[in-house]
Amino acid sequence: MTGILYGTGVGPGDPELMTLKAVRLVKENEVIALPGADPKATVAYQIALQAVPELAEKTLVAVDMPMTHNKEEMNRKHDAAAALVEEYLKKGQNVVFLTLGDPTIYSTYVYVQKRVAAHGYPTELVSGITSFCAAAARTNTPLVEWDEQLHVLPAVHRLENRLEAPGNYVLMKSGRKMSQVKEILAASGKEVVMVENCGMESEHVYRSVEEIPDDAGYYSLIIAKEPHGGL
Amino acid sequence: MTGILYGTGVGPGDPELMTLKAVRLVKENEVIALPGADPKATVAYQIALQAVPELAEKTLVAVDMPMTHNKEEMNRKHDAAAALVEEYLKKGQNVVFLTLGDPTIYSTYVYVQKRVAAHGYPTELVSGITSFCAAAARTNTPLVEWDEQLHVLPAVHRLENRLEAPGNYVLMKSGRKMSQVKEILAASGKEVVMVENCGMESEHVYRSVEEIPDDAGYYSLIIAKEPHGGL
Repeated sequence: MTGILYGTGVGPGDPELMTLKAVRLVKENEVIALPGADPKATVAYQIALQAVPELAEKTLVAVDMPMTHNKEEMNRKHDAAAALVEEYLKKGQNVVFLTLGDPTIYSTYVYVQKRVAAHGYPTELVSGITSFCAAAARTNTPLVEWDEQLHVLPAVHRLENRLEAPGNYVLMKSGRKMSQVKEILAASGKEVVMVENCGMESEHVYRSVEEIPDDAGYYSLIIAKEPHGGL
Repeated sequence: MTGILYGTGVGPGDPELMTLKAVRLVKENEVIALPGADPKATVAYQIALQAVPELAEKTLVAVDMPMTHNKEEMNRKHDAAAALVEEYLKKGQNVVFLTLGDPTIYSTYVYVQKRVAAHGYPTELVSGITSFCAAAARTNTPLVEWDEQLHVLPAVHRLENRLEAPGNYVLMKSGRKMSQVKEILAASGKEVVMVENCGMESEHVYRSVEEIPDDAGYYSLIIAKEPHGGL
């Protein structure tokens, strides 16, 4: 019998935001995959280790898939990652692949899962707390109420539709083009808050467009809401 | 010293999707508020009880806020709910208010929190797994990849913009107008999947618009994605 590949979200940073299921899977299984060349240096490892100290004694598999815009190279990396994971699965060992946040939201893990599943191995996704839910909680305000729409936009500076639809927005992956993004936000008239490194020690909250630095980090997340009187 | 009000998500249904923090808060505190006239009959209680059996011995506070379109009546209900919670806070007791899914996503809890906070009591939001992340995990596919946009729309049949923006959609609160919603979905050309009662015993997954019954339940969640070849 082959093993199962579990794509497991560890949440956004606070180890206490791991789910009981993620904790159990790490405890019960021997092989833990982590997205990076040095498993112990990954953010996912650092988060999970605090919740499950037993992680330090596990077999760690480094799944290195650095971001690239060269599609061929990327495909090669994902193929190699799948092959690496399958070495354990074919021996009957489960692999718990830890990933930041939730594995269904912009996770590179799914490229590995697609390949592994196509090769006939069983796979399962285990939900984690998303960065945008955690950021909203951190600012102590709801993301959406009543019939408000929620739009999650990566790299908003490249989009045509930008912030035109009614509703509240989450902007992700904006770090590298922050001055452009700030212009879009200022023009939108929305209430803006940005959370940098949510749930980590280096966390910082900015409460207006003006406060946001042009060189904000990669893990910055912006919430832009329609201004309205509270109930 | 007054107590703290913790708005705490218990996730979508599977007790193992509760976070360590939610479990700890229930264990450590005596007063647990639940959204309903009969606390033990609420879905949030049923979920949390399976993860934290100690819940059965706690002081349960029934916070009854039935849905109504009469704004005055609703405000009265929310005022009464806040007053009820504050009776414990002013005695120095924390109140852990359990809510389905995540407290920042369409949760009626926040109307209580706004009032309690306005009266000067400390409040905190504790993230939970959202129903749409859990539904995507259940179907074993990502919600969004790369630069795809994610749009979460409640009551899509009442909206003007519907499914016109590029990206993937989550449709919530569609149960009562399902035949209309099915027409919108069929016209969109998107790949559609619906998960009813995700993570509960009565869970059911529908893999196309045609399969979806016109009388689907309130906890039905639809994912409508742009068709594209997998990587």
